[in-house]
Amino acid sequence: MTYTRVIIIGGGFGGLNVAKSLNKAKMEVLLLDKMNHHLFQPLLYQVASAALSPADIAIPLREIMRAHKNTTVLMGDVTDIDKEKRLVILGNGETFNYDYLVVATGARHSYFGNDAWEPMAPGLKTLLDALSIRERLLTSFERAERCDSITEAAKFLNFVIIGAGPTGVEMAGAIAEIAHKTMIKNFRRIDPKKARIYLLEAAPRVLPPYPERLSKRAHKDLEKMGVRVMTGKRVTNVTEDGVQLEDGFIESKNVIWAAGNQASSLLKSLDTDLDRSGRVMVEKDLSLPGHPEVFVIGDAAHVLDKKGVPIPAVATGAIQEGYYVAKIIRKGIPKDRRPAFKYFDKGSMATIGKCKAVAYFKKVQFTGFLAWCAWGFVHILYLIGFRNRFSVGLNWFFHYFTGIRGARLIQKSIREQDKKDKS
Amino acid sequence: MTYTRVIIIGGGFGGLNVAKSLNKAKMEVLLLDKMNHHLFQPLLYQVASAALSPADIAIPLREIMRAHKNTTVLMGDVTDIDKEKRLVILGNGETFNYDYLVVATGARHSYFGNDAWEPMAPGLKTLLDALSIRERLLTSFERAERCDSITEAAKFLNFVIIGAGPTGVEMAGAIAEIAHKTMIKNFRRIDPKKARIYLLEAAPRVLPPYPERLSKRAHKDLEKMGVRVMTGKRVTNVTEDGVQLEDGFIESKNVIWAAGNQASSLLKSLDTDLDRSGRVMVEKDLSLPGHPEVFVIGDAAHVLDKKGVPIPAVATGAIQEGYYVAKIIRKGIPKDRRPAFKYFDKGSMATIGKCKAVAYFKKVQFTGFLAWCAWGFVHILYLIGFRNRFSVGLNWFFHYFTGIRGARLIQKSIREQDKKDKS
Repeated sequence: MTYTRVIIIGGGFGGLNVAKSLNKAKMEVLLLDKMNHHLFQPLLYQVASAALSPADIAIPLREIMRAHKNTTVLMGDVTDIDKEKRLVILGNGETFNYDYLVVATGARHSYFGNDAWEPMAPGLKTLLDALSIRERLLTSFERAERCDSITEAAKFLNFVIIGAGPTGVEMAGAIAEIAHKTMIKNFRRIDPKKARIYLLEAAPRVLPPYPERLSKRAHKDLEKMGVRVMTGKRVTNVTEDGVQLEDGFIESKNVIWAAGNQASSLLKSLDTDLDRSGRVMVEKDLSLPGHPEVFVIGDAAHVLDKKGVPIPAVATGAIQEGYYVAKIIRKGIPKDRRPAFKYFDKGSMATIGKCKAVAYFKKVQFTGFLAWCAWGFVHILYLIGFRNRFSVGLNWFFHYFTGIRGARLIQKSIREQDKKDKS
Repeated sequence: MTYTRVIIIGGGFGGLNVAKSLNKAKMEVLLLDKMNHHLFQPLLYQVASAALSPADIAIPLREIMRAHKNTTVLMGDVTDIDKEKRLVILGNGETFNYDYLVVATGARHSYFGNDAWEPMAPGLKTLLDALSIRERLLTSFERAERCDSITEAAKFLNFVIIGAGPTGVEMAGAIAEIAHKTMIKNFRRIDPKKARIYLLEAAPRVLPPYPERLSKRAHKDLEKMGVRVMTGKRVTNVTEDGVQLEDGFIESKNVIWAAGNQASSLLKSLDTDLDRSGRVMVEKDLSLPGHPEVFVIGDAAHVLDKKGVPIPAVATGAIQEGYYVAKIIRKGIPKDRRPAFKYFDKGSMATIGKCKAVAYFKKVQFTGFLAWCAWGFVHILYLIGFRNRFSVGLNWFFHYFTGIRGARLIQKSIREQDKKDKS
């Protein structure tokens, strides 16, 4: 007998949970991902800010799926999808047939048409992104220490984060902690406390989708930590020397982009309607119009909640969609009998710094120490695999009491930096 | 008043211990290193074999020296030393004067004149080396899984380690464990157990400087773990496709170099006698002939023990030399009143795999479980900083009971590999 073949593209929160939910189903499941690991993206900023190591927040997909005998994991780069022939095509020319296809390819950051800014203002989506931001961040303090004058050192001690969504807020708070706490007594020439951290947001307030009271609280907490929060500021250019605003220029060698998302370009090969961010406009059962055997989930999909508002690009959304789609596939439910996907809003939380966070669930709002504890608890709980949970918990515990960041490593030698400066 | 200025080049075991021993001395100490961290090199192979994360075995030098108010740490690349003007020159043109200079610049691997082999057979000295070996190792299994035929997959599942000193032996044992234990049930097309691990050594036995009984035991242990040990084998060429021996060819996409050391090229600027490995021939007080204010220690120095035999390039040697030199500098002992440096041989140990190791101290020899425990104990003890000790201990504990390696991450996407293959 031949089994139903299911192909899942992407091992993020959405794709991985489809694969896990198909355990023991009498199907042939193929999980494809460009990377070999599932990445716990909500904690990626902690790698970028030297608090955690990559291995703390990433686990090989094969290790997660090792006991799922019906599942093959392949590290492969899907370059094309032929939905008529039901075919997935990889970069090396290999092809695979499917009966069901789940596209869960996530998103990269978007520069809103200004892709030239990327080298100067990297975003934060992959482990390599995080390591490169960490490298720049730490090298900047080292280079400032080598400067002859304080004026010269300033540009290395100015940090600009563009976009004050959760990632931007968390990154700004973390850099403030590094500069004003972690680095204390580490330098002899510069005073890391003099580092300036700018958080820019085009909207009138930080954490725009959050309740207004929480935005205000986050704003106040950030300022207490020494972050210069600037709302209603549009960035018009990013150069080697800094960030141009409509009404001023901030000199900086450290710009981080946390402003927008753009869904994977693979989605174009599906030849269907996309929204402004490149996400697929799916049906109520998350399938492609005219193709009930193709599903798109997570950050790759434009999904509406019961009020007709697009659901936010968060892990809990992708996970719920994964479970929902897996159920349809496992039971082989035909299109006309599928219930519509229902999103259960689990609220949102963002951490700002030690003992500082904001969170809400339905009408209940938390701030300060309580929100911070809730944030830590939920994130450790969601981290897959006992070992990682334990290691992250341990690192946080140490960080809490000592202020030490365990991963303050610059991997490249200063020789390469010197060469770059000269050229 | 002006303080005595001490410059230390290199923050490895030697240089770091000079700096630490000068704590509270009324001197201006400058510690220069190309990197921002001290690296615990004896455990580097565990990063290369995905058992530990870089942050577990590396600590920022500034963090170690934070309480030493007389010490400035600079990330700088020393390109020249002017011993007449007592001047150290950095890559960016900066210069520093010294009253005492300690050169502790360590060694890189040596290809014995065949530097062209390096890209195919990387060595293991820095964190980047280790991460790039880890990346190749893990990607190799992924690529084998993508191959259509078993014959094609073979070249990705052949691993060759050149050189059977402690690093080579440890690396071979670790790869055997990865292939035969860690990866079990992870793959569907290939059987990682079929991976072949070759350990090549030109000398007639593995661990050449060890007592013969221990070499034999290590040889036997390695074979039990599935390593193909080949002694008395000289490598005549390394290509993209594998390793050429005098009497055969081993096809492999995974070659690791663990065969020789070459001291830092900076030593040439000292304009003094060097040995075959480029190490400085120092006087009995570890100073440069004619320059009692310049010391060379660690892997950069050719030092003889009381029997006239060069002392081995091990951490304990460098540490002892560091203490010795710091004492001379701190007390300002003039050349003619300095006692000769005396090396205290603390023995050697090498681990082979779980519960398998060899060790000796003077005439006492250990093998098996006992040696393995001693090895773990000593290495954790030497790891600087409580946090790292704890984290490494924890990782080992998990690894011991679960066989899981916590850092099995490929950081680069398979897309880049596909592109490389096509070009």
